[in-house]
Amino acid sequence: MNDKKLKIGLFGLGVVGQGIWKIIARAKNAHAEIVKICVRDIDKPRGIDVTHDLLTTDGNDILNDPEINLIVEVVDNADASYRYVTEALRRGIPVVSGNKAMIARHLPELIRLQSEHNTALLYDASSCGSIPVIRNLEEYYDNDLLLEVKGILNGSTNFILSRVFDHGEDYQHALRKAQQLGFAESDPSFDVGGYDALFKLVIITVHALGVYVAPDHVFTYGIGNIGDFDIRYAREKGVKIKLVAQVVKVAEEKFTMFVMPEFVSPEKYIYSVDDEYNGVVIRGECYDRQFMFGKGAGSLPTASSILSDVMARRHDYRYEYKKMHYQTLPVYTDDVELRIYIRYRDTDISKLPFIRVREQYTSDDNKYLIGDILLKDLKHNRALLDNPDIFVANIPLFFKDRDTLPE
Amino acid sequence: MNDKKLKIGLFGLGVVGQGIWKIIARAKNAHAEIVKICVRDIDKPRGIDVTHDLLTTDGNDILNDPEINLIVEVVDNADASYRYVTEALRRGIPVVSGNKAMIARHLPELIRLQSEHNTALLYDASSCGSIPVIRNLEEYYDNDLLLEVKGILNGSTNFILSRVFDHGEDYQHALRKAQQLGFAESDPSFDVGGYDALFKLVIITVHALGVYVAPDHVFTYGIGNIGDFDIRYAREKGVKIKLVAQVVKVAEEKFTMFVMPEFVSPEKYIYSVDDEYNGVVIRGECYDRQFMFGKGAGSLPTASSILSDVMARRHDYRYEYKKMHYQTLPVYTDDVELRIYIRYRDTDISKLPFIRVREQYTSDDNKYLIGDILLKDLKHNRALLDNPDIFVANIPLFFKDRDTLPE
Repeated sequence: MNDKKLKIGLFGLGVVGQGIWKIIARAKNAHAEIVKICVRDIDKPRGIDVTHDLLTTDGNDILNDPEINLIVEVVDNADASYRYVTEALRRGIPVVSGNKAMIARHLPELIRLQSEHNTALLYDASSCGSIPVIRNLEEYYDNDLLLEVKGILNGSTNFILSRVFDHGEDYQHALRKAQQLGFAESDPSFDVGGYDALFKLVIITVHALGVYVAPDHVFTYGIGNIGDFDIRYAREKGVKIKLVAQVVKVAEEKFTMFVMPEFVSPEKYIYSVDDEYNGVVIRGECYDRQFMFGKGAGSLPTASSILSDVMARRHDYRYEYKKMHYQTLPVYTDDVELRIYIRYRDTDISKLPFIRVREQYTSDDNKYLIGDILLKDLKHNRALLDNPDIFVANIPLFFKDRDTLPE
Repeated sequence: MNDKKLKIGLFGLGVVGQGIWKIIARAKNAHAEIVKICVRDIDKPRGIDVTHDLLTTDGNDILNDPEINLIVEVVDNADASYRYVTEALRRGIPVVSGNKAMIARHLPELIRLQSEHNTALLYDASSCGSIPVIRNLEEYYDNDLLLEVKGILNGSTNFILSRVFDHGEDYQHALRKAQQLGFAESDPSFDVGGYDALFKLVIITVHALGVYVAPDHVFTYGIGNIGDFDIRYAREKGVKIKLVAQVVKVAEEKFTMFVMPEFVSPEKYIYSVDDEYNGVVIRGECYDRQFMFGKGAGSLPTASSILSDVMARRHDYRYEYKKMHYQTLPVYTDDVELRIYIRYRDTDISKLPFIRVREQYTSDDNKYLIGDILLKDLKHNRALLDNPDIFVANIPLFFKDRDTLPE
């Protein structure tokens, strides 16, 4: 047992930062103490009992403090997050961060900095709220038998879709409720557009398969355009629409990944992941499917996940990115066939190169088409899919190439 | 990245041992190789491709081999398991074991041996099939905010109960099917009597709360006496009967634990854990409930869990039993009130000191009583409950003392 006492410099005292303050006060055996907090506005009223001398607006007060042996960064701004985290790592100070956008965009550099300066950056909290998915992929699924990680990674869109599907609320009303409850970011497009799930998926892929794919290269489509017609359609088919992120091996040496709404049927584990919960299915060659489930949004669940990262630093834990050093790494491909549902009205979708159209429906108000299309062709036509009359959902099917893998 | 190549000596080549052989051959990046296997009978026909020179009947051929840097022990015999594992640890050889009975009975000594000889014993595979519950409790829920670990820890009884509840089969028929599928141990009382779940619970409690409670001190009641009346009763109430193991904080400094059948209502996570699956709910002060779910029985799921322990040894992972060193540890108590259902016929149950009887039913064929009773009084009368006309199930309710803990 390491008797190291953690002296923490905290960046950010918003919803999550306040949760961390409360939880660390409560965890008597954590041997951790917050000794300085960098905030934007010292005099802003906060609902917690923090003395003024702990607060500073100057990040250097934390970075230069030799007493501080761990930095916890939960700033609501990716640029500030990047500056604080990289500077701390360059000085050899270990960091726990919850900023998925920053991490997903800069992961290769952040991995290099950890190695060059022999320090650690932990970010389990960034990836699935309270579910320890990164740590498990890194440590427990530490082998090349992993076939798929698929799940609901964004609590606020899942909350919205649950209100719509289970409670018959309309979309706008559900979105407002999510924001009131603090589940949605102030800019809802981050959640609703699928970017939050995308950033988490990019991070997960590094720890699942050892490969970094930059966020810009991943097809991402959110739930912003979902309409009553789509909801009715899904209900009639006995499925729910969920925003699903997935990374899937499609052949021994190839994988694909994307974020998009999906028709989820009741026999799937993620069907019953409702409200602000997250759920992740990890599929492997030998253990079939494993399912992890927990709160994916909110101050205390996120803060308790940060606490787990903090505690890991008591025994000097760091991610080793072992899979990145495998001799053969699978290669990312978007040359895979998907089956999609596309609902439209006025947009001419004839330039979408469907390999095969399977169903087509036309009425005065709505049209939809179900067909098979390559993911890369969806990417090439990504802008078209933002037209407000269009909504796209994935109809999961086994990828053709995957026949070569054991089921 | 550690480039250590693992040279494994394997004890046991039964169902799980053969799964390990197959999986290690398949995991190309594992850098692990089985170099010697101790079996009881060299000439027994086996469905796998193992050359005869690898096999030995003398455990010393493994223990004395200087090339071997990891022992994997999956012997179907607790005494032999104890001898091999303790001898290996005494020689400083790290061990991965799947023998829950042996580990649960000898854990304090096994912890001491690891420390004295500066080596490691890993046993995630022993505790929940393919669900990484020990590692998560040890590493991720490494703080004192944990309130409860509760779950279905035994795949074969769960398989049997699923056949009974979901498929209307009778108990004996379901038991035989479980045995045919290799889900049940050759001696069914190990599973059916709740002992398998008990041993897992004892191990989990060490990693959840830092306290070892010997198996003999824990109230354990299995499903062997379940009858048609009980199944009908549960169905009428809209609940399932599941064999549930739980360790629960009942006050800030007190916890209780037991294994017994429980009426599980549909809104509970474990309600939908069916067939040979295991499911564990971890409840904490801040993250509410987390749920982990996966295959709990079978050759390959168990073997892949062993592989995760094996891989952890590549980077010299060991359990640190951190929580055992906390300054204040909660104390085990059986002085807690439970609400139970007891079905009986001829047995005089009047000596069970119910605090309050809540319901009573009598017919020509069956009687049942629902009432509140102290766990310690159930323990004192444990022998009575084995009478073949009796079946007991827990009706979960909030423990009275727990009002002092945050909900």
